[in-house]
Amino acid sequence: MYFHDKRLQYPVTVDTPNPQFARMLQQAIGGVEGEIRVCMQYFFQAWGNRAPTTKYRDMLLHTATEEIGHIEMLATAVALNLETAPASVQEEGVMDSVVHTVMGGGNAKHAIEGMIHKNLLSAGMAAMPIDSDGVPFDMSHIYASGNIGADMYANVAAESTGRVLATRLFNATDDEGMKKMLHYMIARDTMHQQQWLAVIEELGGTENLPIPNSFPQSSEDQANNYNFYATAVDGSYPEGRWTQGPSIDGKGEFTVFQNQPLGPEPVLGAARPDSGAQKKQIGL
Amino acid sequence: MYFHDKRLQYPVTVDTPNPQFARMLQQAIGGVEGEIRVCMQYFFQAWGNRAPTTKYRDMLLHTATEEIGHIEMLATAVALNLETAPASVQEEGVMDSVVHTVMGGGNAKHAIEGMIHKNLLSAGMAAMPIDSDGVPFDMSHIYASGNIGADMYANVAAESTGRVLATRLFNATDDEGMKKMLHYMIARDTMHQQQWLAVIEELGGTENLPIPNSFPQSSEDQANNYNFYATAVDGSYPEGRWTQGPSIDGKGEFTVFQNQPLGPEPVLGAARPDSGAQKKQIGL
Amino acid sequence: MYFHDKRLQYPVTVDTPNPQFARMLQQAIGGVEGEIRVCMQYFFQAWGNRAPTTKYRDMLLHTATEEIGHIEMLATAVALNLETAPASVQEEGVMDSVVHTVMGGGNAKHAIEGMIHKNLLSAGMAAMPIDSDGVPFDMSHIYASGNIGADMYANVAAESTGRVLATRLFNATDDEGMKKMLHYMIARDTMHQQQWLAVIEELGGTENLPIPNSFPQSSEDQANNYNFYATAVDGSYPEGRWTQGPSIDGKGEFTVFQNQPLGPEPVLGAARPDSGAQKKQIGL
Amino acid sequence: MYFHDKRLQYPVTVDTPNPQFARMLQQAIGGVEGEIRVCMQYFFQAWGNRAPTTKYRDMLLHTATEEIGHIEMLATAVALNLETAPASVQEEGVMDSVVHTVMGGGNAKHAIEGMIHKNLLSAGMAAMPIDSDGVPFDMSHIYASGNIGADMYANVAAESTGRVLATRLFNATDDEGMKKMLHYMIARDTMHQQQWLAVIEELGGTENLPIPNSFPQSSEDQANNYNFYATAVDGSYPEGRWTQGPSIDGKGEFTVFQNQPLGPEPVLGAARPDSGAQKKQIGL
Amino acid sequence: MYFHDKRLQYPVTVDTPNPQFARMLQQAIGGVEGEIRVCMQYFFQAWGNRAPTTKYRDMLLHTATEEIGHIEMLATAVALNLETAPASVQEEGVMDSVVHTVMGGGNAKHAIEGMIHKNLLSAGMAAMPIDSDGVPFDMSHIYASGNIGADMYANVAAESTGRVLATRLFNATDDEGMKKMLHYMIARDTMHQQQWLAVIEELGGTENLPIPNSFPQSSEDQANNYNFYATAVDGSYPEGRWTQGPSIDGKGEFTVFQNQPLGPEPVLGAARPDSGAQKKQIGL
Amino acid sequence: MYFHDKRLQYPVTVDTPNPQFARMLQQAIGGVEGEIRVCMQYFFQAWGNRAPTTKYRDMLLHTATEEIGHIEMLATAVALNLETAPASVQEEGVMDSVVHTVMGGGNAKHAIEGMIHKNLLSAGMAAMPIDSDGVPFDMSHIYASGNIGADMYANVAAESTGRVLATRLFNATDDEGMKKMLHYMIARDTMHQQQWLAVIEELGGTENLPIPNSFPQSSEDQANNYNFYATAVDGSYPEGRWTQGPSIDGKGEFTVFQNQPLGPEPVLGAARPDSGAQKKQIGL
Repeated sequence: MYFHDKRLQYPVTVDTPNPQFARMLQQAIGGVEGEIRVCMQYFFQAWGNRAPTTKYRDMLLHTATEEIGHIEMLATAVALNLETAPASVQEEGVMDSVVHTVMGGGNAKHAIEGMIHKNLLSAGMAAMPIDSDGVPFDMSHIYASGNIGADMYANVAAESTGRVLATRLFNATDDEGMKKMLHYMIARDTMHQQQWLAVIEELGGTENLPIPNSFPQSSEDQANNYNFYATAVDGSYPEGRWTQGPSIDGKGEFTVFQNQPLGPEPVLGAARPDSGAQKKQIGL
Repeated sequence: MYFHDKRLQYPVTVDTPNPQFARMLQQAIGGVEGEIRVCMQYFFQAWGNRAPTTKYRDMLLHTATEEIGHIEMLATAVALNLETAPASVQEEGVMDSVVHTVMGGGNAKHAIEGMIHKNLLSAGMAAMPIDSDGVPFDMSHIYASGNIGADMYANVAAESTGRVLATRLFNATDDEGMKKMLHYMIARDTMHQQQWLAVIEELGGTENLPIPNSFPQSSEDQANNYNFYATAVDGSYPEGRWTQGPSIDGKGEFTVFQNQPLGPEPVLGAARPDSGAQKKQIGL
Repeated sequence: MYFHDKRLQYPVTVDTPNPQFARMLQQAIGGVEGEIRVCMQYFFQAWGNRAPTTKYRDMLLHTATEEIGHIEMLATAVALNLETAPASVQEEGVMDSVVHTVMGGGNAKHAIEGMIHKNLLSAGMAAMPIDSDGVPFDMSHIYASGNIGADMYANVAAESTGRVLATRLFNATDDEGMKKMLHYMIARDTMHQQQWLAVIEELGGTENLPIPNSFPQSSEDQANNYNFYATAVDGSYPEGRWTQGPSIDGKGEFTVFQNQPLGPEPVLGAARPDSGAQKKQIGL
Repeated sequence: MYFHDKRLQYPVTVDTPNPQFARMLQQAIGGVEGEIRVCMQYFFQAWGNRAPTTKYRDMLLHTATEEIGHIEMLATAVALNLETAPASVQEEGVMDSVVHTVMGGGNAKHAIEGMIHKNLLSAGMAAMPIDSDGVPFDMSHIYASGNIGADMYANVAAESTGRVLATRLFNATDDEGMKKMLHYMIARDTMHQQQWLAVIEELGGTENLPIPNSFPQSSEDQANNYNFYATAVDGSYPEGRWTQGPSIDGKGEFTVFQNQPLGPEPVLGAARPDSGAQKKQIGL
Repeated sequence: MYFHDKRLQYPVTVDTPNPQFARMLQQAIGGVEGEIRVCMQYFFQAWGNRAPTTKYRDMLLHTATEEIGHIEMLATAVALNLETAPASVQEEGVMDSVVHTVMGGGNAKHAIEGMIHKNLLSAGMAAMPIDSDGVPFDMSHIYASGNIGADMYANVAAESTGRVLATRLFNATDDEGMKKMLHYMIARDTMHQQQWLAVIEELGGTENLPIPNSFPQSSEDQANNYNFYATAVDGSYPEGRWTQGPSIDGKGEFTVFQNQPLGPEPVLGAARPDSGAQKKQIGL
Repeated sequence: MYFHDKRLQYPVTVDTPNPQFARMLQQAIGGVEGEIRVCMQYFFQAWGNRAPTTKYRDMLLHTATEEIGHIEMLATAVALNLETAPASVQEEGVMDSVVHTVMGGGNAKHAIEGMIHKNLLSAGMAAMPIDSDGVPFDMSHIYASGNIGADMYANVAAESTGRVLATRLFNATDDEGMKKMLHYMIARDTMHQQQWLAVIEELGGTENLPIPNSFPQSSEDQANNYNFYATAVDGSYPEGRWTQGPSIDGKGEFTVFQNQPLGPEPVLGAARPDSGAQKKQIGL
């Protein structure tokens, strides 16, 4: 179960509210690389964890709980960036500042831009669980496979795309408050990448491979498990670490296979009379 | 651009058609761990690849193209497993076999079960781009971030959940044809896990960390990038590789931080008169 | 069954077409607060109504049918606001007016803005069942629970967010035609809020509580049904109507409970050998 | 920011694991009436709250935080109900028990049924953020409008459909552990219905109407804001509290209006030559 | 604007309620081939119609309005088929009839099956705007392109998949009431196919081609507009009406082109230093 | 199975990169009229084809394979149009060019606009499987019904809306490279419209009607299969090819029916005590 402190994990300030940057921040809330995703992913991995020990359940709960605070920080940042967005045409200065802005300022463009966003129409100038294009977050992005190796790689991937996004946001603003908030969040993404890689190391590193390592490799097609399939019509392929030498798991040797059909042309049974097909499909 | 051969990548046969297993196979077509996902993910990573060399674009195209053939194999397997599903109540033997089945057979249960599925109602006994619950595949699962490190980890994660799924399907059937097809696909998932890890190694292994490695770590909060945040109210936390010792990237030292608010309670501006709020929110 | 009159429920005129306002109006068509939602919600509540009398089915049909006419009005308004949006770069005056606009006018900004929208690319300058960000309406927002109390509160909520949206749109335009249309729709939202509250009153007001009132309260945990759970780590909580005094339904007394775990740490069974987990999860 | 305790809010035990009931419980996790919805709805309402006081932000945080613990309880319940679901055909007793079950037991039917579910194929016998049909939760269901009146009615609606669902689940099981868990959750839903109604009362009860009450009613069409629109072709309508007497807000009198078109047939401009229409639409 | 009659378009009776058939009927309500789709598609085509005459707007309104009555019929059919579905385990006879059913009856299997469906958990035994797998209808399936030729073909396609579905449902039931309802709906689908084809004929038949016919064919690549592209690696292709002879629109001659790349390998610019890529992508 | 050539189907060049046009092009990739849709639709139709001959499977594979190359071309075009979009505020010239642009140029407006798009935040300036509003493609748009007649009409519709979109894009740009690419794609859409109509002709033309033609028309309601339903309250209707004369399939005669209810008011059973309804619905 859970507790809260009404203070923020880290200070969130905005020097110059910018509705357009508010929209960009939404990607870090409701985007597929965002904080709702990692928060919920770690929670569902924790709640379904079946390892013989509850150690990994515990650890996941610590970090999932931390992530709620990150969504909260970003939601606060969005609301603060929307503070000056106009809700009505009567609002003082909007029209005037359009001219002003184009000549050197920056707010009016943002202001008008902001008017078409759901953040204003649906939420009254607040954050929503949507991405920077207004697409709501879809919980199918919560990967919790029941295999801790697959889950840890999914977590590394999530924190990698997450940190890439955070650095893009950092580069896209010169607001000091926003840069400070983001420099903190980027640091936490660094730690979280490390953390999931540390679990992989603790679980044995390459011994985890191939995932799942509980399936006997003798049951897979051993003629096709370490060869790169070349599918170019002219037989060319790019040489690299994946075309020769020992495989990464040390259990095979990389080779190259010029791909070709190993099976016949498939023939399905004809459509049946009662199946809603056309007569000619049935042979009538 | 692309070419095809109308033969299959690998033989697909079904000894005993089983509509319920057809539905399970749908997870490997349109599930988030399925083949449409990896196929399209590798294509979009290739088509958007901006490395100074086209080497990685090339390699991704080889494997993306291979994956189309995997979707084709699975679609064929679904169609073959649906061959005996009844489309009409008049169909010979259905009612009789209900009794028969419960006593020892297996088909009638499947048959009736199959009747409610979109595979029959929408597709006339064929595969669809949906998962095992009938949910259509949503292309937001195509991760192509523009950062090759993040993408490679996303690919390892995709092939790991994909191989986990394939082994679950292998375990869930005793049809020899299906087992043979799956033992091939499991092998290809092994190779693809290796392949993306090989790219990470070729790109420098831990030098890739933290992703993106082009963002200067001096710009991130160096007090918070290698410490595990403990969020339990009683101060406990699980010790592990992530709480002490050198970090995985060798650039820091893991420590533990008892989490607490570093920021104040946030205060947003009051609602404005024209913002569609209630009077008491505006202070009227 | 249904009939139509090809005239509009209420006049829809646009003095100055504005493609950007067209986009904002889309929120009232395909947004979650929009007219498709209430129209379909009332229809499905009517069609599934199981009260011993058909009185409420009847009433819901009257209002559901009225709402089709509201979608039609808004769709007309969107089309009229898009009349001057440019479809091609050759269109007279677009480039010229970019300069003009920034200097004082308003159309060119809108025009260019409009070019990226699906309303033009997909619909040829017409309304679509999407929201102001282009997200299609998803029918999972149709709440029809089979419990008339829950449904009436869902309807009050829908008409409340709907009227909030309509007033935001009213404030965002100074087009006289649009203001007139919206002042009518805002009035209808007022009535519909009243109407659903009138049903709650007719059904007994607080006697409806807790919803569903057919479930015996003796079967719920009577130690935990009227106490506010305080989850702050420091034990603080905001006092209000909900922390003391008789409950709203008159069946209990509000109290405060300092939240704490009432259950143990959960322990799930270990992963099984055939479940696609990693060896260490299985204990191998 | 947030803290956790690894113990559960309330005990969760399952006497007889039942994979089918696990699926039904998913509706309370990822269904539109479920706990993810209320949890996230209260968080986003809190984080965007703009009332002049932070009192309502505070209160919402208490309850949002409580709700995380409810998702956790349900996720635990799903995992426990899936413990005996078969992952492989080799599993001891499955085939035998099919016959046994039909003759009087109950598990084998559940077991086979369970095999097609994403909970097994994707999550390895754990809970997922999906509903009872496997549809992932979509965050567009988080209603946080920026208007506290609309939000409170949305919350009452959410807790009403939520409690309806919980009582249906309670009625659908005779497992003592599950009944105990649900009798607790039903109680909390009772309190939460009361709590949001208490806020409405504290804010002035009917003074809140119509929502938003900050929009001057003089600006809405006062000829059409308290009349029931009758749309039946034969002029009939159901009499009720909504057809006569004072309106619920005390600001009007209910009347009946036989609906008819108040506007003309709409005429849109013809399609333009460059708009991708057919020649005959353009008049060529 | 719109009116209703509370009677049904056509009688809906169910001789033997069958919850499983209720689920199948859902495909005709909320499936992509279902009645919500055609209803809303015709409405949006009408409301956005820009032909110089309002004739087609009128006609579309007639049929869109008719389709509301079809959704209503199906919703009624679903509710009637769910009448005997059990809501609780205490319900009389459920357990007994499990044994009975397997021995010859049919209801208990249906009954238990029905328990997991959202139609019961979310809607209390009523229809919902979902398909037969419980997936909510998504309004992106409303095709209204602004081109009347494209729209008419989309309508023919919709009524064709719709009639295919209706015949599959007809074949899947032997309930006399359901067969009667469906034999009516199948007939209406026949008419609607004819109706949209009649519009195409009235607009000039093949003169409509290629759609849009307002785009000058001199502006398209005339070397590539009537040749079948053969993409098989071995150069084979299936001969048919599409490989030789005059084209269907009479404006060209079908030929065959052995496909090959007409463009070079694409080279994108390298990733930029500030773009969140890895160092090696940037060339560092 | 499949092969690739790393060269493009047709040259893709961009004279003046334009991030806003990149967004418009996204509609042709991930829009419902786009190339992913037709590519996957033809593949699934091919893979599930059950005609007694594999001829149509073959033909569909040729064209599905061709379409992959079209997605590739568009993805390349998007990436090239994003080359000059700014990723950071520090980027040289952005602020300066704002003023410049408004005075006569065109890029800075585009550049700033581009900053809020997922193409930059999520993909690092590359194409994504989304539409022009950032909505991800949803695979439910893949129509493959198992009826070849319905499928061919769905394909004609897809290529018609596709060509309409392509001509709108052609009209919206004056970049010579983009116009050349589009003039090629428009030509291919012409051929594909012809190709699917050629299949319909080869299968017998109007003999295909009504679809499915394998369902005996004697089983449909022959009093209601060729009459236009007029639903206007005043009895008016638009005369046309659909109101008189022989039907298109030559099997009936068009007539007009003034629509009226043919069924009674529906009465559902009352809610049951255990169904989670309100007491008054149950009659308590």
